[in-house]
This record gives sequence, structure tokens and C-alpha cells, in this order.
Amino acid sequence: MALVVQKYGGSSVADASCIKRVAQRIVATKKAGNDVAVIVSAMGDTTDELLDLAEQVSPLPPGRELDMLLTSGERISMALLAMAIANLGHEARSFTGSQAGVITNSTHGKARIIDVTPSRIQEAIDQGHIAIVAGFQGVSQDTKDITTLGRGGSDTTAVALAAALEADVCEIYTDVDGIFTTDPRIVPAARKIPRISYDEMMEMAACGSKILHLRCVEYARRFSLPIHVRSSFSTKEGTWVVADPYTEDSEGTEMEQPIISGVAHDRSEAKITVVGVPDKVGEAASIFKTLADAEINIDMIVQNVSAAATGRTDISFTLPTADAQTALTALKKIQAQIGYESLLFDDQIGKVSLIGAGMRSHPGVTATFFAALADAGVNIEMISTSEIRISVIVGQDAIDTAVAAAHRAFDLDADQVEAVVYGGSGR
Amino acid sequence: MALVVQKYGGSSVADASCIKRVAQRIVATKKAGNDVAVIVSAMGDTTDELLDLAEQVSPLPPGRELDMLLTSGERISMALLAMAIANLGHEARSFTGSQAGVITNSTHGKARIIDVTPSRIQEAIDQGHIAIVAGFQGVSQDTKDITTLGRGGSDTTAVALAAALEADVCEIYTDVDGIFTTDPRIVPAARKIPRISYDEMMEMAACGSKILHLRCVEYARRFSLPIHVRSSFSTKEGTWVVADPYTEDSEGTEMEQPIISGVAHDRSEAKITVVGVPDKVGEAASIFKTLADAEINIDMIVQNVSAAATGRTDISFTLPTADAQTALTALKKIQAQIGYESLLFDDQIGKVSLIGAGMRSHPGVTATFFAALADAGVNIEMISTSEIRISVIVGQDAIDTAVAAAHRAFDLDADQVEAVVYGGSGR
Repeated sequence: MALVVQKYGGSSVADASCIKRVAQRIVATKKAGNDVAVIVSAMGDTTDELLDLAEQVSPLPPGRELDMLLTSGERISMALLAMAIANLGHEARSFTGSQAGVITNSTHGKARIIDVTPSRIQEAIDQGHIAIVAGFQGVSQDTKDITTLGRGGSDTTAVALAAALEADVCEIYTDVDGIFTTDPRIVPAARKIPRISYDEMMEMAACGSKILHLRCVEYARRFSLPIHVRSSFSTKEGTWVVADPYTEDSEGTEMEQPIISGVAHDRSEAKITVVGVPDKVGEAASIFKTLADAEINIDMIVQNVSAAATGRTDISFTLPTADAQTALTALKKIQAQIGYESLLFDDQIGKVSLIGAGMRSHPGVTATFFAALADAGVNIEMISTSEIRISVIVGQDAIDTAVAAAHRAFDLDADQVEAVVYGGSGR
Repeated sequence: MALVVQKYGGSSVADASCIKRVAQRIVATKKAGNDVAVIVSAMGDTTDELLDLAEQVSPLPPGRELDMLLTSGERISMALLAMAIANLGHEARSFTGSQAGVITNSTHGKARIIDVTPSRIQEAIDQGHIAIVAGFQGVSQDTKDITTLGRGGSDTTAVALAAALEADVCEIYTDVDGIFTTDPRIVPAARKIPRISYDEMMEMAACGSKILHLRCVEYARRFSLPIHVRSSFSTKEGTWVVADPYTEDSEGTEMEQPIISGVAHDRSEAKITVVGVPDKVGEAASIFKTLADAEINIDMIVQNVSAAATGRTDISFTLPTADAQTALTALKKIQAQIGYESLLFDDQIGKVSLIGAGMRSHPGVTATFFAALADAGVNIEMISTSEIRISVIVGQDAIDTAVAAAHRAFDLDADQVEAVVYGGSGR
């Protein structure tokens, strides 16, 4: 008997008929001989409606109370789902994040899971019940206050709970068929990836793929928990995220490792350039310490060779556009101290990333990528690489062209059926 | 510094602007130098909307899950209220029933409070915060599941929490000015009662007055906690419910005890008559044991003197109309065993009650009451009395006439200004 953890997002439980359909799917999994625990998000627009109410009573609501408010969303969906399952003749019990033992730190709105102690869930499962658990929420270790996990929180709850329960698989249900080689809205020939590694999936998530959140994949990787991303609208196999996808597939056949798994893109970043920084030891460190103190996550950093004539250099970095104003304000405060000349700001940029574990053993990937972008007339503004990723910053209006060109250059388009291709991005 | 516990019902927090107004009232109480804890119900129609959702997924939802669902209602209102208070520059913290230490038994949908251990509320108050607590809900001692208290539950939460915190007063805010001598919709000359005793208020609640629930008054009486029932739409004094209302009023003046405090009525009962019961020892006991086993609450009972010729008697009793079908079914099962002749059922009845601690020392109240009903042409079907109450069962279409006649006969009408009058009923 396997233990299957399933996660259903807000669109899968948007109304009563959706909830009834999800209930049938859960009961089918149970009837097939599995133990089942289910993580559920708030129904469709509930969170937005609650945020709207909050805004009506307070322009800047305290985080503790906002978390208390928002967690009522999953409370509603999980109770309804348990009722719908009971109506199909199976026992289901719903549990809040707190009841499920999801222990977090106290950072309201984006709490981190510290520990999961799911004794009540285990007990419900041992009694033959289906456990329904609220996603996205927990309880703080120090204050015992209710917390929310922030973006991608329900996926993280699912993976963390699955790991704590030593589940055989964590199934993430979504409204698409799995992870694709790239965003099918940009490249209609994008293909579903059958299997992908944790490392590649983490790079995908970090580079703008929205299907799985980075923290959720990190968690699964740490516990070697297989994730199966699939559609709640079909019974087709989706994408398996596992430690080593290339040794064998679900039929036991060894698979060829592709050079490039997928092409991701991200439109949410902006670029700041600090112009004319004196080329002295410690100046760059001062700049990034200032930004770290302001709790800003920097993505890519480029420092040019300093001009010999002036002894000055330019430092450019990218960051989430939402943090740009805070960053600019913080940097202006240290202008006199650092002695830089000026700041440049550009939010008309985007990041395009090639991800593939296979590039470790295949030289020439960078050359092929850059040639494809040049042929498509795309200008590269910044470059950054990891062992299994190459990212470039391009003008925002060149993103789609760059994605399509890269997808084609690495033979990822679906009409080239002889290539075994993995990777993916975006919805 | 006094500790004031305030309770606001669903109509007081029906939308964002209501919530903001309630927040101002709470902050004003805090600014006046009081510590404040607030119990809040779900917003306006929230509970009905949640019940409607439940019905869409399951015709007979499990009690545990229904409680989980419904408790999201107070979670929303309490978080919003805390935000609205924060927006006025004061610290407020919301707590679920479970967090507030409201411990109940496991009877989902109508759980009883076993204990209140409000250490987190006390801590919040000690830190100078305003504590906002979800009404109507608790956590079961045995299963640790979320429970709801059933009808009047938020008032009971307020009084129980106020008692546990040793509060100076529990203010129950409602949409009327206080407790009235009778329902003003029936008798426009009904008057607001300034002070009333726990005993009288309990009789009122048991006899159909809807403003305070019986359990809530029982709880206040046990702990000698003063309740102040008042309107959330004005700052006028409402009705004080206290142990001994006649020794002195709020200005310290001793008040004259009225004979009759108020006239209550109840349209929710029905009458069952068991015809031709053999007049043997133990037959009545068998009948009422059968009803008790079916968990039916009996109100009034009348047994006639048995007819000498037949050796048989009739036993009539009243009960909530909602329980009548269950009672009839239970009684039919024991017809052969008891040997009674038939059952009569009548739901076209109503109960009119005179309540007043003063009737203890005033003979003739019954005579005046019955004469007034006779003069008004009202036929009395059943009679029952307690030390401070006289109730009669009349035909349903005679209720309003009976209430008005009694109210007038005991000089409760407002134009007779020289009488100091207490008592009240209904909204």
C-alpha cells in the first residue's frame, strides 16, 4: 500500500462542482489501494476577495491579522472537500496547518517551515481516513500565531508534509499537463517533459517558471521525494521531478540525457547600474551590504573592468522590479560615502535562461545559444552562468524572439520527434 | 482600571463600514481607561453563505467538517476588526476560540463549554493590547477538534470569557436598545427595562425572549457577572442584567421592585396529547422516559384527573415543533406496551408568560392575568407556573391579543409614567 500526497490548487477547487470532481479523484486514489493525504488551497478568488475586504478596513493591515484573515480561505475549501468525500461514502478529516503540525518561523506573509510534526495526520491515515490539510499556512514556533507561507506556499506544504509522512509520491495537480520545454504561449511547439531532475527544476523555478516554486523543489530534493506535476483535468501522466531522471523512466528504460532541458524566461526583473564607482577594495562589498540590509534579493551582478584613465568602474545588477524603489533609496543614502557618480534604472528588461544538466558535458552550448540570439537580432545586455544554466538579460520586447530562437536552436520543437527532450517553463 | 468584555453580533459587523464603526467604539472604551476584550460573530450573512456552499457539496455534511467550515466566519470578522483597530493606532490581536482557551465537549454543532483557560487573552491584555476573540466556537477537550456552540453561542462565549477573565462587565451589543417589557412589534407602548435579575432574565429567555440566550444568562448568574445589553447604534444605557437589580440603580438609588417585569411569548412550540392512558403507577414515567431517550426537551406537562368510569387519563405536553415528528414516532412505538388509545397533535398554539420576581410577595397576580385574558376573549388551554412566572398555552391566533392584554393589565404600558416597570421580551 502506497502513501500518496496530493495537492490541489485554487483553480481545481474553484466552486462546488470542481470540489465534487476533486473528491471523486481522491476517492479513486483511495479505492486503488492507497493511503491518501490531500493539501488544498483556497477556492479560486477567495484570497483576492479577502484581501479586498482587508483593504476596505485598513490600508496597511498588520501581518499577523492578515494571515489570520487569509487562512480562513483554506479552512473553507478543506471543510467542503472533506464533506464532498464523506458524501461519496469515505471518511475524510480536515486539518488546519497548525493541527497538521506545520511549524514555521514568525515572518508573517512569507513564513518558512521549520518542522512538520504530522502526528494527527498520521493518526487519521492509520484509522483509514483521508486527511485533508490546509495548504499555505502554519503556526509560528515562538508566538503560536497563525502564519502564511507566501508565494508557492501550498506546494511547499504538500512536499514538506509528504516528506514528514515518508510518502511515496507528492502529486501536484494544476491546470496544465505538466512542465513544458518552454511557455507554450510563446512557442506553440513546446513539449511536455516526462522526467526532470531536482537541480534542473530548481533552476527553472529560479528563472521564471511558475509551475513549481523554488522552495518546494528544494524541499523535495532534500528528502529525495518524487514530485509528479499533472493536470486535475485529465488522468494523463504529467512530469516527474526526481533525483536522477535519466537512469530509467517509469517503464524502466534508460533515457538519453538531453543537452538542454528547457528554456525559461522572467519578465519581473529590473536592472540598476551604479555608475562611476571608485575602483577600491571594498566598494562593491559596501554596495551589496547596503542592499542586503534592506532585505533585497539580488539576482545577476556584472562589474566591468575599470577604465584605466579614471580608476572608476560601473556595477550593474538585476533585482525584482517590486524592490527597485527600496534599492534606489538605499543606494542614494550612501552616494557620498561610496563616491559613485550616478544611478541608472531600467525596468524594460527580461531574462532568458537555458537549463540543462547535459550542458556540463557538452561544450559549445554558449556559442550555439549566442549565435541563435544574434541570428534573431537579439542584443545581449548581461550574462550569467551556473553549471547547468546560461542566463542572458535582453530588452523586454526581445524576450519572445529570444525564447523561440533558443528553443529551435537546441532542437526542442515538438515536430523534431526523434529528439528526447526535457525541460520547461511558465504556464 | 476596569476590564470590559464587549460582544458584537453579526449585524454589528455586517460590512467594512460597520466594522470600522465598531472599531471606533472599542477604541473609545480603551481610551476611557479600560482594558478591553471583544467577542465577535461572523459578518452578517456569512454563516448562511457557508451553509449554502456546504449544501452544494453534500446534503448531510459531517458535524466535524461543518464546524470547521462555519468557524471560518468569525476568523474573517475578527481579523478585519483587529485590522480596523490597528488602523486607528491601537494594538489589537485576534484569537480563535481554540487559541482563547474555550474548551468544549465534542458535540459538534451544539457543543457545551467545559472550561475557559484564557492565558493568551490575559497575556495580550497585560501587554496593553485589545484582544479580539471569535465567538460561537471552541475546541473539544477529547478530540482537539474545532466545535461550534450552537444558538446564542457568541453571547455564551462572551460571558464565559468575561467570567474567566474576572471582567467587571460583559457588554452585549445588539441592534435594539435593550430588553423591553414585551415585544414592541406587538405592543408599541413596550418600555426598555433599565435593570433586571438573572432569574427573571432566564425565565424570559426560556419563554421566548430572543435577545439573550438561556445558557449565556445561566453562565453569568453562576459567576455573578453583570451583563449590559445595549445598542451598537447609540451610546445610551441599555438593560443591566444583575443579581439584585432592586437594591440600587447605577446612580445608587434604591428602586421599587415591580410585580411583573415583562410579558414574553413563544410561537415555536407544539402540543401532543396522549389520550386514554391507563391510570397505573409508572405509565407517565414510561412515556417521558421514551421522550427523554429520544433527546426531546419537554416544556409544559398537564395530566388530568382520571375519569373514574374508565380508569384512564389524558396526558398533554408541549415541546419544540421541530422535535414533534420524532416524539410522535417514538410514542407510536410504545403504544401497545403502554396501552394508550391515541395521539393528538396541535401546532397551532403559542405560549404567553408573565415574568416577575415581585409576584412572590403579591398574591392575586394569577387572578388579574386570567381575568385580563377572559376580558380579551382569549381561551386558556394549559397552565404552568414557577415561583416567578405564569405561562399559559393559547391558540396561535390569540397570542398577540393575550400579550397586549397582559401588558396593559399590569400597568406596563409606557404612557403610565408613574409606574417603575421592568421586564421584557423579544426584539
